[in-house]
Amino acid sequence: MKRAILALMVTMVILAWSFGVQAQPPVSEATQACLDCHAQVTPGIVADWQKSLHANITPGSAMKKLALKRMISAAKVPQGVAGTVVGCAECHTVNPETHKDTFKHNGFQVHVVVTPKDCSICHPVEVAQYSKNIMSHAHGNLLNNPVYHNLVDTTDGVQDFDGTRTIYKPADAVTTAESCAYCHGTKVEVKGKEARETELGEMKFPVLSGWPNQGVGRINPDGSMGSCTSCHTRHRFSIAMARKPYTCAECHKGPDVPAYKVYMVSKHGNIYYSMGKDWNFDAVPWTVGKDFSAPTCATCHASLIVDQDGNVIAQRTHQMNDRSPWRIFGLIYAHPHPKSADTTIIKNKAGLPLPTELTGEPVSQYLIDSREMSKRRAAMEKVCLACHSTTWVKNQFARFEHTIETTNAMTLTATKILLKAWEMGAAKGLAQGDSIFNEAIEKMWVEQWLFFANSTRFASAMAGADYGAFANGRWYMSKNVQKMYDWLHFRLKAEEGGPSK
Amino acid sequence: MKRAILALMVTMVILAWSFGVQAQPPVSEATQACLDCHAQVTPGIVADWQKSLHANITPGSAMKKLALKRMISAAKVPQGVAGTVVGCAECHTVNPETHKDTFKHNGFQVHVVVTPKDCSICHPVEVAQYSKNIMSHAHGNLLNNPVYHNLVDTTDGVQDFDGTRTIYKPADAVTTAESCAYCHGTKVEVKGKEARETELGEMKFPVLSGWPNQGVGRINPDGSMGSCTSCHTRHRFSIAMARKPYTCAECHKGPDVPAYKVYMVSKHGNIYYSMGKDWNFDAVPWTVGKDFSAPTCATCHASLIVDQDGNVIAQRTHQMNDRSPWRIFGLIYAHPHPKSADTTIIKNKAGLPLPTELTGEPVSQYLIDSREMSKRRAAMEKVCLACHSTTWVKNQFARFEHTIETTNAMTLTATKILLKAWEMGAAKGLAQGDSIFNEAIEKMWVEQWLFFANSTRFASAMAGADYGAFANGRWYMSKNVQKMYDWLHFRLKAEEGGPSK
Amino acid sequence: MKRAILALMVTMVILAWSFGVQAQPPVSEATQACLDCHAQVTPGIVADWQKSLHANITPGSAMKKLALKRMISAAKVPQGVAGTVVGCAECHTVNPETHKDTFKHNGFQVHVVVTPKDCSICHPVEVAQYSKNIMSHAHGNLLNNPVYHNLVDTTDGVQDFDGTRTIYKPADAVTTAESCAYCHGTKVEVKGKEARETELGEMKFPVLSGWPNQGVGRINPDGSMGSCTSCHTRHRFSIAMARKPYTCAECHKGPDVPAYKVYMVSKHGNIYYSMGKDWNFDAVPWTVGKDFSAPTCATCHASLIVDQDGNVIAQRTHQMNDRSPWRIFGLIYAHPHPKSADTTIIKNKAGLPLPTELTGEPVSQYLIDSREMSKRRAAMEKVCLACHSTTWVKNQFARFEHTIETTNAMTLTATKILLKAWEMGAAKGLAQGDSIFNEAIEKMWVEQWLFFANSTRFASAMAGADYGAFANGRWYMSKNVQKMYDWLHFRLKAEEGGPSK
Repeated sequence: MKRAILALMVTMVILAWSFGVQAQPPVSEATQACLDCHAQVTPGIVADWQKSLHANITPGSAMKKLALKRMISAAKVPQGVAGTVVGCAECHTVNPETHKDTFKHNGFQVHVVVTPKDCSICHPVEVAQYSKNIMSHAHGNLLNNPVYHNLVDTTDGVQDFDGTRTIYKPADAVTTAESCAYCHGTKVEVKGKEARETELGEMKFPVLSGWPNQGVGRINPDGSMGSCTSCHTRHRFSIAMARKPYTCAECHKGPDVPAYKVYMVSKHGNIYYSMGKDWNFDAVPWTVGKDFSAPTCATCHASLIVDQDGNVIAQRTHQMNDRSPWRIFGLIYAHPHPKSADTTIIKNKAGLPLPTELTGEPVSQYLIDSREMSKRRAAMEKVCLACHSTTWVKNQFARFEHTIETTNAMTLTATKILLKAWEMGAAKGLAQGDSIFNEAIEKMWVEQWLFFANSTRFASAMAGADYGAFANGRWYMSKNVQKMYDWLHFRLKAEEGGPSK
Repeated sequence: MKRAILALMVTMVILAWSFGVQAQPPVSEATQACLDCHAQVTPGIVADWQKSLHANITPGSAMKKLALKRMISAAKVPQGVAGTVVGCAECHTVNPETHKDTFKHNGFQVHVVVTPKDCSICHPVEVAQYSKNIMSHAHGNLLNNPVYHNLVDTTDGVQDFDGTRTIYKPADAVTTAESCAYCHGTKVEVKGKEARETELGEMKFPVLSGWPNQGVGRINPDGSMGSCTSCHTRHRFSIAMARKPYTCAECHKGPDVPAYKVYMVSKHGNIYYSMGKDWNFDAVPWTVGKDFSAPTCATCHASLIVDQDGNVIAQRTHQMNDRSPWRIFGLIYAHPHPKSADTTIIKNKAGLPLPTELTGEPVSQYLIDSREMSKRRAAMEKVCLACHSTTWVKNQFARFEHTIETTNAMTLTATKILLKAWEMGAAKGLAQGDSIFNEAIEKMWVEQWLFFANSTRFASAMAGADYGAFANGRWYMSKNVQKMYDWLHFRLKAEEGGPSK
Repeated sequence: MKRAILALMVTMVILAWSFGVQAQPPVSEATQACLDCHAQVTPGIVADWQKSLHANITPGSAMKKLALKRMISAAKVPQGVAGTVVGCAECHTVNPETHKDTFKHNGFQVHVVVTPKDCSICHPVEVAQYSKNIMSHAHGNLLNNPVYHNLVDTTDGVQDFDGTRTIYKPADAVTTAESCAYCHGTKVEVKGKEARETELGEMKFPVLSGWPNQGVGRINPDGSMGSCTSCHTRHRFSIAMARKPYTCAECHKGPDVPAYKVYMVSKHGNIYYSMGKDWNFDAVPWTVGKDFSAPTCATCHASLIVDQDGNVIAQRTHQMNDRSPWRIFGLIYAHPHPKSADTTIIKNKAGLPLPTELTGEPVSQYLIDSREMSKRRAAMEKVCLACHSTTWVKNQFARFEHTIETTNAMTLTATKILLKAWEMGAAKGLAQGDSIFNEAIEKMWVEQWLFFANSTRFASAMAGADYGAFANGRWYMSKNVQKMYDWLHFRLKAEEGGPSK
């Protein structure tokens, strides 16, 4: 055993000699003060940060990298932050006056919630792109849209039964925070201060509502929107992690947006799960064929992709939808992407805050036009063409657009049955001033588009047929129409005689 | 190629010199006799065992490790077993007289089913803790509880249709063995002996019913309960494997207890799946930040966790629920954990063997009190606090307890509809002496708590919102209440006029 | 840093010396011509191919391997292909005259779709075995069977609602291509030629329908059936990948055939996911215990398995079902495997193209007999016995066959309810000349066998109880019978009085 230790020591000396000379880059005094306590108090996150790029290179050195390799997008980083690594203090004490959650902590003005605005000191391009991303408005797009707010209430709200009727309560904030707003983002607010005993005596801390949260559209105490840590998980902030599909899966796995599930059964997913452990997820730029052999979510939607000669195949983007012409999920019908990331401005002819009519016609003035759609499709196709022939890619997109048509048609059929039910008084809808989401038949209708049509489109977009056939796609779309029809037919017949069969 | 081989050989010689001097520790004569045949007969398990710690260290050497590193919990191991590795004979021939499955095999008294009692020779603390774990009683808690036994019968039993009615047969033992009892544990019984031709001539072997099985509450032929191999899979018995979430997933993935599915979409799961391949799952003790960056199931519920200075954050426990104040699944309502691992002793006011009334009130005398609950929560929080702030952890637990309230409320609503159905004669329940699980409306009610409320609570406990929102949580709780109401309303209206809508 | 680079260079020189002398084997002139452009045009697949065995060994050298290690099954490879690696031209330009998709491309006669017939130059045994595999006929077995074609139409076809009735359109070819035929295989047809601008000027390419596709029963432009790339994914053609469960999951994960989902919660799956990253998936032959510690799909169904002394435990097979006595999915009842891979030849007594009657009796003349079943079971058991005792294996198979009985019984019960519904006029079926898949009650019936009974059998076959209990198995079989009964009872009562309850 002694000899083993000796051998190990010799090896380590050699390694230290070859690599180690590069001294650890300097840590600011303020960050060192944080670390002095927090290495004891919260050892897990300190250790995680120590493995991060933030802890191992100064912004000043990072700025010297060649353009394609650089991950800082600022033309210049402020004098004060260039020379030391990006540690606790660099993020948690910047812009103290704009942060309502700033509090005095051992002589520092610390804030709890680090925001895109804080990150934009070094990463302004990413933050600016992200603000054009519909995801940055996910909180308001859900909760400030009366139709969608009602979907939240009728999903998350507690119901009672009084022996005759069911009664819905609105969704409460705590429940919303751990369901819809987990992904859409909460509004984080300071509700006061409280004193707590710590190992260093009594200390005061802010009381926060809507916290913890890393939702993509989080409303931050400094007024900014979004959370970089949705994908670049604290405190490692690893680009490798953001490129792996598990990160997207946190919010894109359920039946309403089953991207991950479709990926898992696609050929691309199969290659990733089978071979991906040998790929280089840290390389910047990301070289097709060399660093990876099949795309993950990030490859198609976000990353800077190059070929082996360094030619750019796709530019890095944090406006995730700028290679996506169609918005295929979450809404009643698939439609061209909205122009504005804030979708609460949309009104259809019927006066509803929806990008299509209830019968599917797109509300075009709020949506991107065909030129923009072509541009986005071309950007996406360029990624596909790094491995596939033009015929292949063209046919794949033709299939996808055909599926948009057929799934919209199947949603329209379900909608027609619902409209008939409302018309015949078998359920109460818009005309009766009632919620369109609260009754059994309406929930069947919601599943038609929110689950089954969406899932079928994802399966088509990413060629994960197994999911779109029987797992949660076409089988259920077809069955659901028959279930809705059966319900209506039966109900009307039983109650007062209706459409004959 | 020759040079490659030469280079490899040189490397191996150096490695052998540095590590290899430590000769392979001795194997007992009895085990060697087993190996002599079984290396041919069952090569897979022999090879697996050879990679195990059991095969590579003697109990005597293992005893010399420092307390935190030691995996043997016996104060002393018996003289006979200390000097040789733990091989076939050490486990399969101990306590031959207490094992009803002992049989003569080439001169040895061998038993098939190795039990916690056998393992307790070296691991008594774990076995004692485990016996207080509700899991060790999983067989009886299911099958000796008349209400739950009926749930098994109405789930696993074959049904017939005679043109007018459906008829249930009780679940048969073979079916139960491969469904409920796969996890809950079978009763393994010796049903006789049979002769079989082998390569060494005719041999006699015991005939076992309920075998194979590694259920957590297995009733063993020596009268003991449980199966260490549920988690410490034969014949590698790897601690790394028990710490990975796939092990728990064997029984905690279905909609009745979707811990794994929630973990997969939680931030913790995301970190594990993205970065976990570089973690050290074999380290004992397990150092937060150094060995792993996010918890797996074992981190929070079982493992010995330390910080980088060796301070204990959580003690190892095999009474898995002793960091869990609430029992959140399997029962109609979430409630404080039962005091006794044997839950068949519980009776509610209505005389049912349930820890709450049908309307949700806990049967407190059988359940842990608020002091014990606080103690358990504090133990769990200590794990969380290794990475998270007090505010974060406090808010997370407040959310979780709020979810316990709202999910219990949603179960109560479903129960009220069912009670109304029974009252109005739309279904037959307790008052009619009928099963409460056998009719369509009753199965809807079961899903409310067994699937949807449970899933929502798991999603809350582990912050895997995607699962608790649309995948199998709140959406379905809400829809199910409306479906049950729709059914009742419609049924009563169609049959004889009922609650107006 | 300089020293680090120096150290790395020294290491690389040593490695190069020890391994690198082996010069890269020669590439044909034709392939080199392809590579000269395609390294730029489609860099991803070129890089992938460069990592493949095809690119790194010539058939001539591969032929010299010992029989158990050899992956070429041809007794002799044609003179022309033996001396250079298997590159672009070797596959995409063979047999140009038989390929309807052959087109002139820079002086070469290139075809797009490489087929089993092309691969059979080196791998004739695998191709011949595969042709006896029911999978090779998956296209016709689905689409040339009128009953199953109707299932496709009523699943994939767009429906409309005219205010009174729902109307089905047949499934269109584009939809089928990305749902059922993704796995079953499309018919790839040449629909003409089109000119496209490329970097090398205008070029003509064939227009293909049904493309892209790698379905297992693809009908190829050269008249052959199947697609080796279903499992041996282009352009790495890795045996490791084919052995990993993700490959099978592409088509075996949905509720109709949830092999992957069952595997994930089985003990075998648990071992694979926890420990498999250290296994050798490239070894040929594949040694139990040494290369892997638990089976993947391929281990039991396809691979050449040996013990550590090189004794063959299972021969490689590409007739995947030749270790499977029972066909447990896709059909209404589980039954002995069909004799012929082409199942369209089957007719039951009622004249339907089904291997059983609607009431379950097998149509024996088309199915393998008990002798063949025993032979297949014995072949499978030999794999199990590499790790498990005879008692274990025997009991496991007894459970499985018991489950075939009980699940068939539960399907029969659902069928009886449907037959009653047809008889009483509550739905329209065979007697009325109507589809048996188009109404709500019929879709419930389909789920009984296509989802729930199938899933329960998979869970039994592979011991993944969690999936077969509540995830998609017995709970749903039981609930579905009650739902169907409830529907029938209620419907008849509401409409005209029916079976009393």
